[in-house]
This record gives sequence, structure tokens and C-alpha cells, in this order.
Amino acid sequence: MRKVCVVITARPSYSRIKAALAAIKADPRLELQLVVAASALLDRYGATDKIIEAEGFKVDRRVYMIVEGENLVTSAKSTGLGLSELATVLDELKPDMVVSIADRFETMATAVAAAYLHLPLVHVQGGEITGSIDEKVRHAVTKLADIHLVASDRAAGRVIRMGENASRVHVTGCPSIDVARAAIAEPMTTDDLFSTYGGVGPRLDMSNGYIVVMQHPVTQEHELARWQVDQTLAAIRAMDMPTLWLWPNVDAGSALTARGLRAGRERGELSNIHFFKNLPPEEFLRVLKRSACIVGNSSVGIRECAYLGVPAVNIGSRQSGRDRGRNVVDVGYCSDDILNALKSCVAGGHSEKDTLYGDGYAGTRMADVLATAPLSIDKRLPY
Amino acid sequence: MRKVCVVITARPSYSRIKAALAAIKADPRLELQLVVAASALLDRYGATDKIIEAEGFKVDRRVYMIVEGENLVTSAKSTGLGLSELATVLDELKPDMVVSIADRFETMATAVAAAYLHLPLVHVQGGEITGSIDEKVRHAVTKLADIHLVASDRAAGRVIRMGENASRVHVTGCPSIDVARAAIAEPMTTDDLFSTYGGVGPRLDMSNGYIVVMQHPVTQEHELARWQVDQTLAAIRAMDMPTLWLWPNVDAGSALTARGLRAGRERGELSNIHFFKNLPPEEFLRVLKRSACIVGNSSVGIRECAYLGVPAVNIGSRQSGRDRGRNVVDVGYCSDDILNALKSCVAGGHSEKDTLYGDGYAGTRMADVLATAPLSIDKRLPY
Amino acid sequence: MRKVCVVITARPSYSRIKAALAAIKADPRLELQLVVAASALLDRYGATDKIIEAEGFKVDRRVYMIVEGENLVTSAKSTGLGLSELATVLDELKPDMVVSIADRFETMATAVAAAYLHLPLVHVQGGEITGSIDEKVRHAVTKLADIHLVASDRAAGRVIRMGENASRVHVTGCPSIDVARAAIAEPMTTDDLFSTYGGVGPRLDMSNGYIVVMQHPVTQEHELARWQVDQTLAAIRAMDMPTLWLWPNVDAGSALTARGLRAGRERGELSNIHFFKNLPPEEFLRVLKRSACIVGNSSVGIRECAYLGVPAVNIGSRQSGRDRGRNVVDVGYCSDDILNALKSCVAGGHSEKDTLYGDGYAGTRMADVLATAPLSIDKRLPY
Amino acid sequence: MRKVCVVITARPSYSRIKAALAAIKADPRLELQLVVAASALLDRYGATDKIIEAEGFKVDRRVYMIVEGENLVTSAKSTGLGLSELATVLDELKPDMVVSIADRFETMATAVAAAYLHLPLVHVQGGEITGSIDEKVRHAVTKLADIHLVASDRAAGRVIRMGENASRVHVTGCPSIDVARAAIAEPMTTDDLFSTYGGVGPRLDMSNGYIVVMQHPVTQEHELARWQVDQTLAAIRAMDMPTLWLWPNVDAGSALTARGLRAGRERGELSNIHFFKNLPPEEFLRVLKRSACIVGNSSVGIRECAYLGVPAVNIGSRQSGRDRGRNVVDVGYCSDDILNALKSCVAGGHSEKDTLYGDGYAGTRMADVLATAPLSIDKRLPY
Repeated sequence: MRKVCVVITARPSYSRIKAALAAIKADPRLELQLVVAASALLDRYGATDKIIEAEGFKVDRRVYMIVEGENLVTSAKSTGLGLSELATVLDELKPDMVVSIADRFETMATAVAAAYLHLPLVHVQGGEITGSIDEKVRHAVTKLADIHLVASDRAAGRVIRMGENASRVHVTGCPSIDVARAAIAEPMTTDDLFSTYGGVGPRLDMSNGYIVVMQHPVTQEHELARWQVDQTLAAIRAMDMPTLWLWPNVDAGSALTARGLRAGRERGELSNIHFFKNLPPEEFLRVLKRSACIVGNSSVGIRECAYLGVPAVNIGSRQSGRDRGRNVVDVGYCSDDILNALKSCVAGGHSEKDTLYGDGYAGTRMADVLATAPLSIDKRLPY
Repeated sequence: MRKVCVVITARPSYSRIKAALAAIKADPRLELQLVVAASALLDRYGATDKIIEAEGFKVDRRVYMIVEGENLVTSAKSTGLGLSELATVLDELKPDMVVSIADRFETMATAVAAAYLHLPLVHVQGGEITGSIDEKVRHAVTKLADIHLVASDRAAGRVIRMGENASRVHVTGCPSIDVARAAIAEPMTTDDLFSTYGGVGPRLDMSNGYIVVMQHPVTQEHELARWQVDQTLAAIRAMDMPTLWLWPNVDAGSALTARGLRAGRERGELSNIHFFKNLPPEEFLRVLKRSACIVGNSSVGIRECAYLGVPAVNIGSRQSGRDRGRNVVDVGYCSDDILNALKSCVAGGHSEKDTLYGDGYAGTRMADVLATAPLSIDKRLPY
Repeated sequence: MRKVCVVITARPSYSRIKAALAAIKADPRLELQLVVAASALLDRYGATDKIIEAEGFKVDRRVYMIVEGENLVTSAKSTGLGLSELATVLDELKPDMVVSIADRFETMATAVAAAYLHLPLVHVQGGEITGSIDEKVRHAVTKLADIHLVASDRAAGRVIRMGENASRVHVTGCPSIDVARAAIAEPMTTDDLFSTYGGVGPRLDMSNGYIVVMQHPVTQEHELARWQVDQTLAAIRAMDMPTLWLWPNVDAGSALTARGLRAGRERGELSNIHFFKNLPPEEFLRVLKRSACIVGNSSVGIRECAYLGVPAVNIGSRQSGRDRGRNVVDVGYCSDDILNALKSCVAGGHSEKDTLYGDGYAGTRMADVLATAPLSIDKRLPY
Repeated sequence: MRKVCVVITARPSYSRIKAALAAIKADPRLELQLVVAASALLDRYGATDKIIEAEGFKVDRRVYMIVEGENLVTSAKSTGLGLSELATVLDELKPDMVVSIADRFETMATAVAAAYLHLPLVHVQGGEITGSIDEKVRHAVTKLADIHLVASDRAAGRVIRMGENASRVHVTGCPSIDVARAAIAEPMTTDDLFSTYGGVGPRLDMSNGYIVVMQHPVTQEHELARWQVDQTLAAIRAMDMPTLWLWPNVDAGSALTARGLRAGRERGELSNIHFFKNLPPEEFLRVLKRSACIVGNSSVGIRECAYLGVPAVNIGSRQSGRDRGRNVVDVGYCSDDILNALKSCVAGGHSEKDTLYGDGYAGTRMADVLATAPLSIDKRLPY
């Protein structure tokens, strides 16, 4: 039985991988080891570890690694601390392979720890293109990884062109689409989001359509983060539709974003906006499926919404380069542009399902690869 | 004036880069910042920091980062500690660019720290192919780097195929060849190596030819390190020529190698071998130029000896994949094979100069690139 | 000229020591080196480093050391990280002595780093008695320290009885009293606290008397922190006087305290309370001097208020053991007891100045000791 | 059943505590958790972890924490790293109490981690007096500790005078004396130390008496360490008796000591000395019991040799302040003084057993205290 150690460092990574976790857990050939680390342990980012346990997974280890400060220096220091701690954890758990998800700064800690301990590293979601520092992290992790589980044929092609052995690159689709597929097959678990999930801001009447916003700071421009969020706020106020705004994640710059939102709220300007810190992922997807449009720079607008057919106003450079379905409209940071795109998206309505990022069955494909792929840590460029 | 921060983490990295350091220091467009870290600070690896100062460079910062244990876990922990420390150091020095050399495990700390602090990262010696974990580290650093200073056209081609922008890839040659060119133009500084440079073992008569040995542990097989060094010892004893053996570097497995050497010495078997911990690099090159053959798995046999024309018996997988000149004979680990190759190399004599790894003028080319290349940290895969 | 390195790790430590910093800076025999670390660097605790610079001090080094999580494990990990970093910083700054203030968990990092680097350690505010883990930290720092600057004769007696050499124990008074003395000699800088200093909650009419609250979590009972703050809230609501509530500091448990306050505020129950994150220390003292009473468990109620003559309702165990002036009434955590004490304090009015913790001239006394005390790191128990 | 976590960080600490470990393991009221850390994990200090396992104890966790460099900065950094790691380990093991032994620099990591995690801290061997930085560490650990297991009545008196509650101070004797008692009741396990335990140097004829040397660097004078060891070497050469020299432990300065020894050995001056890296503790005690004298600055000369009645020439300040039995002669560092004392000790022969540091039954007393003492982490100075 192969021991598969999955390291979860953030709420969105968990949302993305959970269908695969369930498939690993259900597969008799595999034993799941779960390490929860970084912002996934922190209350102010939604205490993801408690969600994970509530959803039936056992957390084998917790690794506190975020050094406070939310700037570039502490991003690096957090990664160093995490690398040092994860080395100990992996040495104790002795997995047969280690799974690292996507491309956030702290995932480098997982990747380097696994590589240096000579454990086969599985990278989920390599070969994609985006803006920001994530670009460097993602491809560096590809070069450290031994098995690649990618979302699309185009991603597979890029991983192979970077010199990875084609026999180790598996197109599974993204397991976040599995969650989307399952989630929208179920009804909402509540008919009153506001009393069920708390958050701050007024109760909104959502019966005549509503908008969802998720906007993360763009790390290479973090001094602009405040200005950017103010532009989006202005567009949302002008649009004057009920709006659900999801709180941003830990990252250099996110304190500034959060401060912009708080300031707006305290000036009493945000009467059509309700803020949630963390919705259950499935519920969020159902909320999204019923929404008129998603606005911001989250990958959800590009990935899950391709499958859901929900229009996405994608702001700025954060998702630039990512493969897009027909549901996406790209705009700059200015409130006028955001507002125009938003109006046009709401008017145009939902589009057809696009399986660009997966067909909803990635989890079992991933488990099957993990159970059967040759385990080797030898690599060599083929050219 | 651009501030160029070079991070030196090991003696061989210093040997390799020093011609470039001199050129940076001499260039009025550049200011050199020197950080010495890891095993380069440790007495038992030759106190490289003191050599650096003795050769006229100012050490701006020292970063202790090696966690003792010499195993896989401590390699990872050392890198984590180094990353955390280097983040602080780079934040204080505020360089315009950071130079990371080659592919040892701890260089990942420099590369990640620079990338996360949004400092342009210059990678020296990317695009090469070798065995061992270095392969992963080297190419991952390439994906984190913004400017690539490579040794050969073939290396440049590989870096570009991995997706790097060709305009940022510069074929400079390796500055270690500059050192070799300069060193062999000078006479030996001593006619008595043994009293000048100490070490342990008998004084040898080198007037009728001698052999040089450098054998590092191969990290992915570190339990075999002891057996491997014993095979080489047996071949050297059987060859019965005067032999200068250079002590191995810090790495998982090196304690085992060192123990094998000590055991042999204490059994009194090594009457034709003298061990040196650290020779001055230039003197070492002159010793090498005058030698009949180099034996072991050091890159010196492949790189500098191509230029010097000295035959090299290259043992095992450590240098596999590296581009070779006509001076190299590859053998396995067994003493018989090593002995046969050694006899044939000694009989064949020196070969012609081969500029495969550089023509001896890399340092000034590098300084010129550092002074003039556009500074940008934005990257995107072109395919 | 002696170089004096002062390490500031939290806002209250800065408030306490700033009169001494000014005296050190002004003394021609001394050179001030200032290291700002831990929560003193963090926006959510008031960005103390920026206040320090705004008040005319140069910050020589910043050390990020708080590992997020706000629990017991991360308190220890933060201290470990800080120790590792401060070792490097002190080695570079090469001070003639290091000053550590009081007894928060992270001050152990300063004390151990100085002791292990063989730098004379000056401890400010040893020999006092309180509840909580601070008790262990404070006296352990005393045993690591070489020079003791204590607030009172009673504190001096305790330090000496613990085995410290009486010639190295100096009763200077606490420099926070210097600040209080100077602050109340000046008028308020604003007549509208609410628009000047922000915060959240209603504008209050303070013309007919008001109360100040500062309540920190008690670390050894951190699961009770939420209940405790709720009791205080209930008393304050029942008292129905205008109330200024100062936000608690970083510590295991403080997230729970903060959550209790936020919940109350969002239930709309707190119409007579305004919350401030951080008032300028001098302004805070003037606000305090004009208040009817201070409520909570801050040392301010015991120390500065002794000098100011302001009544203090001191809740629970946090300040237990501390020497008290006649202005203090001790109560348990229950809202009824708090309310009764509050009524009686407000009715009783202010008391006479008590110099128990200093007469307002500690700063210059401290600078004088630092400039003249013998520097030695040798210690031995006298019994 | 109480879980007792013992943290072993060095070979001598293990030797000292092992009788207590056996008693804890044998006690049905107690469960032993063993953490091995720092130099106790390192091959070059004798791989104490492997000895521990060979002697029948289970090692629950290994914590690599020594940052290489062997200077003051790395002592502090190692302690910081250890604190950070031990916090995680203790949080996972969830012991009911944590045992920290003696006063080496890295023991502070154990003490602070336990205190900050609110685990009752048991300190073994407090209340003693010595020279060097250990003095600060030892008494600081006393102030962090909740239960004190001390070697002698005089030590107990000091701990209580420092303000510790007398009911928590237990005079158990030192368990190293238990080992001595048991060891000398057995015959030597070999009649050929040299082939059994290896080491370097000539085989010696020990039948006509021999000397044992253990000399550690004195950290506060670490630049003198080389000179000091050279003086001792000169005395030993002049004495010209067969001599067994035990290799020093990790500490700032020990590299210099080791270098002095190596240099002497390589100059061929040491024909009457054999060096051992690590003898099994019991065998060492039997060797000691049969020796004419011990020379150096190890606590063994003061402690075990009091019980054994073996004369001890105690060099320099390292043991100054420690309570002495009648077997000790104190001398300075100069070779003449050492030689004279050595001659007089050898001439005087063995003295009577002195139970100053214990009667040989400390282990079971300790286990009994651990099984029955009230567990509390509340402390307050009584004066």
C-alpha cells in the first residue's frame, strides 16, 4: 500500500484538491497522509484544518510556518521556516510520495523538502501560465517534481517541452471541477446565507440576481493593492446589484486590500455588499452557479466558471496567460472598465459548459496514477 | 552603479566564480556585494571566507546555515535556515541583482530568497546535465532566474528549450577556465607542497609523475559512498604512483567517504597517498596541469581538464550527462576498471586544449552582461 | 563611547522605555542602537516601528519573528526564530551591551542571544511579581542579565535575594513614569479624539466623565479569555458611562479576546464604547489623567496610575503580586464585582501622587548607569 | 500513567541521566518519552542516539539543531532552531512533564519550549556553581522549572534561596553516581581497550598505572583553548605515563581544542597517549576506577571521582565553584603546575568514597518524585 502525503497550505488549495483526497482515501491501494500548514491553520483565513476534519479527513500533522508581516521578506522567511519543519515531518511520516499543489509561494517548501529527502514529488496543476511570482514558483516546482498531474492537454504540452518525461505527465483534469460537478447537483444547504455564514454587511435580497467578487492582491504590485480594490469597490457601488464579496487570502499585500475594504465599509459606502470570510466550498459553488457574474481576479472565474458557464469579469494581470473558456471578459483595473464589462456580462447571461479544465472526474484518475505510476526520483533533460 | 550581490556557499563555487568577482570589482559600472554562507564559512571545509578575504575581496555578510548531521534531512533543514537568513540579508543589502552559482543543494536558498524578494536573479552555469539531485536543483533555479550566464552553446540551447527567453541567455564560458588560463601561466609558488600546504600522509616524490584524486559522495547513493571510496583506494594502491588526494566537500554522505579514507590511512595502507584538505585553487590547477591524470568524479576533470588537456578517469554517475571533451574516460566504481583506465590515461599523455567550457575570458563577459542587461523579474513561458 | 543596543518587541515596551531611549540618545558617552522586532513591526498592533521613527529615533534593524497562530506552540516557535535572527543581528551590530525590557515571551530571545554572544545584558524591570508565564520569563531573564535596572526598592531586594550582585542592581524607577510626568504637563493635542485617532464605535460625549478599559488575555487561562472579556463588557454596559477601550496586544489568547469584542460590537450592544487600536502614548496618558477610572488588567493601572492618582479597577490574576499604590481596587472576573468596584472608584475620585514606581526621572538615571557601570559577563551565586 | 518526556542533547547528559531513564522505564506509573537532539545525534560526538537504542531505550524523536560553525553566534542560532523544533515535538508528544538536564547552552531550548507550552518542567542538577556561561544557563533554567531534582543538600539550599518553593526541591543525588556504583561492581568487558574501542594513537601498556584526560574548551576564553590544551599536552608528555585521552564535546572553541590535539599527534609527539572519541560510559568508569588519576576540567573528576575515590587534577576555571570532595587538586593552566599536581596525586593514591554527589540510588528516587509530585506550572517568588 503506497503512502501518499498531501501537503495543504491554503484554503483554495484544499478546495482544489479535495476530490482527489476523497479518491485517495477510498482507494485500497493508497494510504492518505495529510499535512496541513501555513495559512490553512490560521483562524483569520478560515481555519481550513478544522474544515478538513469536519469533512472527514484526518490531519496527521500541523505545521505553523507563516511569519507575520505580510511582505516580501516574510514570504521568503515563511518558506524557509516551512522547509525546515516539513523536512522533519516528511522524515517522520516516511511517505512513498509527496503531493504539492499548484504554485503559491509556500508550496516551494513542500517541493524542496520532498526533493531533498529523495521522495518522489507529485505536482498538481503544473504547466499553466499566469502572471506574478507564481509563474516562477510553478515551473520551478515542475523541475523538482517526478510525476505531473495536469489539468489540460495544453498544460501537459508545456510540461513536456520544459524537458519532463512524457510518460510521467498525466492529464487528469483539475479536481476542483469534480467538486463543482458534485456541488451543483445538490440544492443549497441554506436559504439564508447571512444568518448561516455570518460575515459582515447588510442582508441582501438576492432574488433578482446578484454578483460575486473575489479579488486578491497582485504580489508584484502590492503597493497598488489598495488602489485596485478601491476601483473595484467603485464599480460595484455603481452597478448597484446585491454583491457577495469573499475576503482575500494571505499574501504580501493582502493587509492593504483588507484595509481598503474595511475603510469602505466603515465609511458606510457599501450598502449593497456583504462580506464573507469563508464559505463552505460546495456552497460557494452553488452560490456561484446561481450568480449573474463573478468579478475579480480569482482563478475560480477562469477554471470552475468555465465548467459552470458563469460569466467572469477578470481584472488585471493576475490570471494573465491562463487558458480561458468563452465565459471570460478581461479588463484593466479602472472602475469604468470593470463596470462596463460587468453590465455586458450580466446582460449576456450564462454560457455552455466548457471542459477546458476538466470533466469532473479528475480525483479518481489522480488516485489511479498515484497507485500505479513508477516511483523514481531520477530525472534528466532529454535535449 | 548597479549593486551585484554574489552568494558563495562552497569552496568549489568560489573557485569557479572568482574570475568573475574580480571583473565585477574592477568594473566601474558595478558594485560588488559578497555574501559568504554555508560550508564556505566552516574550518573543516577550508574556511573559504578567509581565503576570499586574503585574495582581496570584502565579505559583506556571513550566513551560518549548515545544520549538522550530513544527511538528507539536514540538507533540507540547512536550506530552509539559509532561505530564512538570506531573506533578511538581501533585504538589508538591497542589491540590484543577485548571483547564484551552479546547483548545490543550498543554492536553492539563494534563488528562492532573491525570487521572493523580487530581485532579479542571475544564474551561473545553468543548462548543464549531470547525475544526482543537482539535476533537479539546477533546472529549478533556471526557472527562478531572470538572467542566465551559461558555459557553452549547448547549455544555452537547453535553457532556451526549457522556456527561457533567448535574449536573457548569455554564453560567457565558465569563469573557472579564466582561472585555469591565468594559473598555468604562472610557475608553482612552492617546490614543496607538503611543507607548504600540510595535509596528512607521507611526503611523496613527484618528479616521475603523479596522480590527483577528487571523489565526492554521490548523494542519491550515500550508503554506498564508503564502498565506492574503498574501490578507488584499491585502484590507487595497485597503481602505486605518487597520489595527491583532495578531501571531499560537505554533503549527505561525505562523512562516510571521509571515514573510509581515515580508516585506510590508519590501517597504514596508503603509503603512496598524501591527503590535502584544501589547496589554493591556482596552485591546485598548476598541480593538475603537471599531473599525469585526475581520477574521481569532480567536475574539474570534465571542465578545467578539458582546457588543460589533462586526462581524466571519471568514476560513476556523478558527472553523467555533462558535455565531455576528448580528455575523459568514463568508468564504473570497481577498482579493476578504475585501474585499467588509469593505466591507459597515464600512458596516453595529455591532449590538446579544448574550449568546450570556455576560452578563459568569461569573467569580463559576465561583468559586461551584469552591467548592461535589462533588469526585469517578469517571465512567461513562450509556448 | 559605549554602544547600547535596545531591543523593542512590543508597543507597551516602547512606551515604557522611551524616556530612557531619549536619555541614551542625548548622552555623549553613549551610542544608541535600536532593534525593532516581533509585534512592534506589525500593522495590526499599531506599527510601532513607524511611531518610533516618527518620534525621532533611528531603527537600525527590523527582525520579523512572530509565527502566526497565536497559540502556545507559536509563542515558542516565534521565540526560537527570534533568537536565531537576533544572534545574527547582535553579531553584526557589535554593541557593548544589550538592553532587554520586562518579561514578554519574546524577550527571552533577546536575553539568550545576548548571553550566548557574551554581551553584557541589561534587564529593565526585573524583580517584580505578577501572575502568568511572565513570572518565569522575568526571573529567568534576571538570571541571564548582568546589570539590573529596577523600578523600586522592593524589586531591587528581590533581585538581590535571587543571588544577583547588589552592586549591579540599580533602582532607577520606571521610565514610563517619566513619560507620564512629561505628558500630563502638556495639554491634549486634540479636542476630538475620534476624528483624530479613528478606531471604531460611536463618538462619545466625554465632558461628564469617562472610563478607560484595557484588558489583555491571561495566557495560562486562554480558553477563558472570551468569557472574561464578556464579563467586563457586561459591567461596562451596565455602568453606562462613556468608555474608551484599548485593543489588546499579541499573545496566545488575544484572538479570542478580540473576537469577543467584535461580536459584541456587531450585536450593536456597545453604544457607550469606542475602540482604539493604538493611541499615541502621551495622549493616552493625558486621556487617562482626565478619566474617572481605568478598568482591566493592564499594568498601566498599577504603575502609571499610581503616579497619576487615577483609580484602577484591576481585574483578575494578571497583575497579582505586583506592588500596589492606594489607587488600586482588585476584583475577580465577574461583571457584578467589576461594576461595584467601578462605581466606588468613580465616586471616590482621584488620589495623591505615589512614587512607588518612580518619580519621573528614570531615563537619565538609566543612561548614567549604562555609561558608567563596569561591563562584565561573569556571575556567580553568592550563596 | 504520567508521560515523562526526557530531552537528551549531549553524550555526557545521557551518561548522567541513564540510571534515571531506566528507573522511569521500569516504573508502572510512568511512561518514558525520549527525545534525542543536538550533538547527541552526531557521528563526530559518538552517535549517542545509537548508544541509547543499543542500551534498550526507544528514541521517540530526533531533533537536528546544531548549526555548524562552533562559535558564539552558532551556539545561539542552534538554540533558537532547537527551540522552534522542540515546540513542535512537545506539542505532538503531549507529555505530562518535560525533563531537562543540567546546563549546556542548548538545554535552554528544552526549558523555554516546555515553559511556553505550559508543560511542567523538571530540572535535573540545578543549584550548582561552576564557571563559564553554564552558570547563567543553569540558574535561568531553575527559574523556568517547576520541579527541581538536585544532587546535594547544598544545591537544594541554593535553589530555594533563589526563590523556588522548598516543597518542589528534591535532593535525589545525581544518577551518574548510580551508574558509577553499578559499573565498578562489574569487571572490564574487554582486556584490550585498543582493539575493542579503536581510537587513534599507539597501543599502551596499562599494567603499571595510567592516567585519564578529559579537557573541554572554556567557552568564555575560547581563543585560549588551543594554548590551554597545549599546556596539558606538555604536562602529559613530561609525566610520561600511559595516558588515555577522551575527545572533547561540541561547544564554541572545541574545534580549536581538537586542532591542537591533532597537530600534536601529527608532529609525532604523543607516543604515550591514545585518543578515544567515545567509550561506553560504564567501561569508562571502570577504566577511571583503575586509573591513577584523572586530569582536565571535566565534571567527572569532581563528581563521579568523589564517589570512586580517584584523584583528580582539575585544571582552570571550568569547574570553579563546584562543591568538591577530598579527591580534587585545583591547578591553573600552566604545564608545570599540572605536572606537579599530577605527580602528587599519583603518589598519594586513591581516597575514601565520598557521597557528596549521591549514594548511587538517585534514579529510583527521581522516578518516585516524577510519579507523585503535584503537577503545577504556577510559580511566584516568596519574598
